[in-house]
Amino acid sequence: MDKELALELLQNKMFVRLRSDLQEMNPADIAFLVEEMNEAEEFGEKELILLYRILPKELAAESFTYMDSDTQMVLINAFSDKELRDVIDELYIDDTVDIIEEMPANVVSRILRNTDLDTRKQINQLLNYPKDSAGSVMTTEFVYLNKDITVKEAFERIRKIGLVKETVYTCYVTESRKLVGVVTVLDMLVADEDSRIEDIMETNVISVRTHDDQEHVAHTMSKYDIAAIPVVDNEDRIVGIVTFDDAMDVMQEENTEDFAKMAAVVPAEDSYFKTSVWQHAKSRIPWLLILMLSATLTGWISSQFEAQIAVIPMLVSFMPMVMGTGGNCGSQSSTLIIRGMALEEIRLRDFFKVIFKEFRVAFICSIVLSIVNGLRIWISYKDPQLALVIALSIIGTVILAKLVGAMLPMAAKALKLDPAIMATPLITTVVDSCSLLIYFTIATNILSDRLG
Amino acid sequence: MDKELALELLQNKMFVRLRSDLQEMNPADIAFLVEEMNEAEEFGEKELILLYRILPKELAAESFTYMDSDTQMVLINAFSDKELRDVIDELYIDDTVDIIEEMPANVVSRILRNTDLDTRKQINQLLNYPKDSAGSVMTTEFVYLNKDITVKEAFERIRKIGLVKETVYTCYVTESRKLVGVVTVLDMLVADEDSRIEDIMETNVISVRTHDDQEHVAHTMSKYDIAAIPVVDNEDRIVGIVTFDDAMDVMQEENTEDFAKMAAVVPAEDSYFKTSVWQHAKSRIPWLLILMLSATLTGWISSQFEAQIAVIPMLVSFMPMVMGTGGNCGSQSSTLIIRGMALEEIRLRDFFKVIFKEFRVAFICSIVLSIVNGLRIWISYKDPQLALVIALSIIGTVILAKLVGAMLPMAAKALKLDPAIMATPLITTVVDSCSLLIYFTIATNILSDRLG
Repeated sequence: MDKELALELLQNKMFVRLRSDLQEMNPADIAFLVEEMNEAEEFGEKELILLYRILPKELAAESFTYMDSDTQMVLINAFSDKELRDVIDELYIDDTVDIIEEMPANVVSRILRNTDLDTRKQINQLLNYPKDSAGSVMTTEFVYLNKDITVKEAFERIRKIGLVKETVYTCYVTESRKLVGVVTVLDMLVADEDSRIEDIMETNVISVRTHDDQEHVAHTMSKYDIAAIPVVDNEDRIVGIVTFDDAMDVMQEENTEDFAKMAAVVPAEDSYFKTSVWQHAKSRIPWLLILMLSATLTGWISSQFEAQIAVIPMLVSFMPMVMGTGGNCGSQSSTLIIRGMALEEIRLRDFFKVIFKEFRVAFICSIVLSIVNGLRIWISYKDPQLALVIALSIIGTVILAKLVGAMLPMAAKALKLDPAIMATPLITTVVDSCSLLIYFTIATNILSDRLG
Repeated sequence: MDKELALELLQNKMFVRLRSDLQEMNPADIAFLVEEMNEAEEFGEKELILLYRILPKELAAESFTYMDSDTQMVLINAFSDKELRDVIDELYIDDTVDIIEEMPANVVSRILRNTDLDTRKQINQLLNYPKDSAGSVMTTEFVYLNKDITVKEAFERIRKIGLVKETVYTCYVTESRKLVGVVTVLDMLVADEDSRIEDIMETNVISVRTHDDQEHVAHTMSKYDIAAIPVVDNEDRIVGIVTFDDAMDVMQEENTEDFAKMAAVVPAEDSYFKTSVWQHAKSRIPWLLILMLSATLTGWISSQFEAQIAVIPMLVSFMPMVMGTGGNCGSQSSTLIIRGMALEEIRLRDFFKVIFKEFRVAFICSIVLSIVNGLRIWISYKDPQLALVIALSIIGTVILAKLVGAMLPMAAKALKLDPAIMATPLITTVVDSCSLLIYFTIATNILSDRLG
């Protein structure tokens, strides 16, 4: 169903048809429909809430979790307290926390007023974990089993509580709240129903800690191919689990953030279209200003060679090429190393290994580039001295750019900064200055007789 | 256990201790241990295969899937035919295909010789799907059920075949091989055991087609939060499933590829350290050469203004700043738009919406940047004319750069090229030329009285 059809059905009060059509849809698709309606001008809040109220209770709550925070807020403001309670009751705790984090204070207090004490406690606990930590993305709803019960008793427990837990296929075996093992529904299905859980559980459990970085959580799940990972506190007690769907979201978010940072954009919370023009400008201007002003250093360096340029104006025409090649070499190295660190393939202790590797790569690249370009200039300008200047400048620039490109992200990591901020634009600015210095110094020395 | 302990136990022939220690480990960790042993000098192939043979059969095969292809090849070459068959029997078909794709022809034919006809057929079928398609990442092992059986019968079927299927928690209901519904183990657990599958199955099934791009598959799974997605052929017959762990790998791979392309690196198959210095150089030189030679265009443009530079040498010192700001603005736009397209948030039909949005963002950015920089130059050089030249150049450059940065990736997409190749370095080179043209044209006009 598209929004035009939804509007038509709403206006003609064909609610039975609308309800049955909506019931055929997936909660995620219903959420996108409601979002589209919220953005379109022909719909008012009245139509939005009317359509939402037509949905069966469970489907309504499930769709709610997939909506963006704008749409959620419109609906919450229109909800009666009873409706709000119904939605929250159906939500998983971690989804409620996600919603709360996006809402203004008055909406938050209304949500908290409409939850029971136990839920409120869990919400507050989750809200207290640091941003982007395992604790902040986990859900507190999981199935735990006592190691002394039988498979039959375990299945009874799953049947009773299963439907309200995010995943039931991996159950966590605890002993005085400490995590001692995991057992999957498949293990239990193929086991005898009188077997004790203790005898069929896996004791080699992969887990993460509440304060671990969410990116590390996603990597660990991907490395061990597991659909849910238990989160334990400092005393090895299980306090929650992170499921594969949240891990996928974490991966995409972290990657999007890295892409933004590497292009000198302050990462935005929303998607491209949902971010307003003003917000886009605000997230782009800071780095542009910083880089623009630091580029004046490069300008200042080139102004130091005005005398040489006045004598041999042609020197100017090779500036973009030398600077560009340096910038490109630097961003190649920094990007590969930032990515390698994000994937946990490169660690800080690999510093010298990386530097040595980049040095050798840079050496090969610089030789190839300087030969190609040196020959080209020799042939087209019939000026071997000039060709030598360019060739040597490229060798110096490429090697320097690759070393700087490799070192800065690792230095950022060592200083507990995000390596991604040391990416392309900053590297380019640093390398620009150095490459001009190298270029003009070499030119001044080799072409000294012409410069008089 | 680390590789030193493993070596010690091997040399002292303490195989019982070694075996029991290894059994405590996770297959993924055993794989990393074997990989490390393969890379270390103190180990020969003899130790490697000895350690591998100590592992219980199932654990050995499971660890095998987590190893890199170098290590797998060392082991395969040392395997007897019987050992090879044992490993392949334990592997999932899609893992076998992944291994085959990385091996030289003689190893491939040895693997195929040691598989039964049915497995060989399935392998060949998977090998025939286009690279990076849903068909190429799916597994052909999944549980399908007839819609007419009862829950009890379904559980019997799962018990019988479950252990050899990658996921059993979602079962696919088929009718003459066509996919008609899905039913989860949880649905079946909470249902009466005499219910018919048809009555409890979900008929609104999210699926992908064999030729869909693997990135689209991962997005769809992430969008709908599902752990496994069915892959259907043109006649809606289910031919395989893609599981969440493969989807996570696809996401990371595609992101790594995009990062590489956006930094003008030809994407490598292996991780940073596993790629040799020569391969690194080979994957970086092509774009460096292309960009270096295209930067000569920028050089040529600046050489057209040698006369002006000779009169006012100071013009040179603002070149890096104007070019740098243009490059940064362009890469901000292109990165955000490439990422938006990768996340399926921006589509080709949004072309004019994107251009209009970028134009407005560019307008705001350019005003702020030109005011800041214009004032700075006016104050420090006491030269309002020069300040005006720079301010106007920045406005022109920023707007142009953002429009180019937005248009090129979308144009690439329209031409069925990967938008990521239109990223930072290429944009920078294009924008460099244009920004110099803008800068010198404005300078020539405004400063015409001084240029004589």
